[in-house]
Amino acid sequence: MATDQRRRRADAERNADTVLSATRDLLVGGTVPTMSEVASAAGITRMTLYAHFATRELLVEAVVRRAIAETDDALTALELDTFDVDEALDRLVRTSWPILDRYRKVRVAAVDVLGPAALREQHDAAFRHVEQLIARGQQDGIFRVDLAHDWLVATFYAVLHAAADEVDAGRLRSEAAPPTLVSTLRSLLHTR
Amino acid sequence: MATDQRRRRADAERNADTVLSATRDLLVGGTVPTMSEVASAAGITRMTLYAHFATRELLVEAVVRRAIAETDDALTALELDTFDVDEALDRLVRTSWPILDRYRKVRVAAVDVLGPAALREQHDAAFRHVEQLIARGQQDGIFRVDLAHDWLVATFYAVLHAAADEVDAGRLRSEAAPPTLVSTLRSLLHTR
Repeated sequence: MATDQRRRRADAERNADTVLSATRDLLVGGTVPTMSEVASAAGITRMTLYAHFATRELLVEAVVRRAIAETDDALTALELDTFDVDEALDRLVRTSWPILDRYRKVRVAAVDVLGPAALREQHDAAFRHVEQLIARGQQDGIFRVDLAHDWLVATFYAVLHAAADEVDAGRLRSEAAPPTLVSTLRSLLHTR
Repeated sequence: MATDQRRRRADAERNADTVLSATRDLLVGGTVPTMSEVASAAGITRMTLYAHFATRELLVEAVVRRAIAETDDALTALELDTFDVDEALDRLVRTSWPILDRYRKVRVAAVDVLGPAALREQHDAAFRHVEQLIARGQQDGIFRVDLAHDWLVATFYAVLHAAADEVDAGRLRSEAAPPTLVSTLRSLLHTR
């Protein structure tokens, strides 16, 4: 009986994982899928899908949460604290960019489905790395203090996502984004 | 007969204008109104409303187009060409900000209803002023040329709208936005 329960729970987790991956792949491919399309791509019935995610909003939210967690893990692994501020900025950008680039279309769909404010809130988990770096740079006198910490974090976020939008619009090559971003963010953050 | 026709046309134009103003006011107040709410606020029947705007998307698009035209007019009146680059940047920001600030909530609704790409396209009319200023600054050797013109325009746009979002989120006072923006944009654009 207990074994049955464990098996059922393991099945359910596997299902949820398959659903999230299928939804992510559809979103990355540029489609905002219907629940039927998700069920079909994940190879489960709509009933099973709805048992996991009651609405498409909750499903998209879960995909975003997983992408943010992936970014958070990658940035935590960098141990940015062990590098000087400029080196840390460089590593932060070069590690975040491929993930951001991969999830560009997910972001567009998420803005659409969840709204920009909800999306920004979700991002806070990954953005603590940016917040910590900017705070350290300001404390060390390397980053400017004439502009507020919150505003520097907001512009960092805006510039990073502007690069994703520009790549999406075909005005910036993805490979050119990391050096462009590092150069832009340095001018923005550094004291003169 | 011809007089009748003229009168009907004048009535229709007045109606369309009333509808656009009513929709704008509702959006500025933070509501994305239904077609019924718009008709009621404008004091016309839903039938008359639908004769002017077949869908809510078309209506929101028309409101955005009018707001952009207002910005374009205000910026054209500045005759930015007659000022040096830094003075022109300052005037551009101080003139755009109150309009952008007033239309903050319209922008959120428009992203929701039209999507970010369509919105950016609409903005091109007002953004030609930014494009011209950045091109002139680069030609005169005052603005950096190590980053592409298109990218500088994109970051300008992103930073300007980040300020609107920060005011919306209560993290930045509206009065603090123009000097914050001028300082941020100068660091971003200037050669070192």
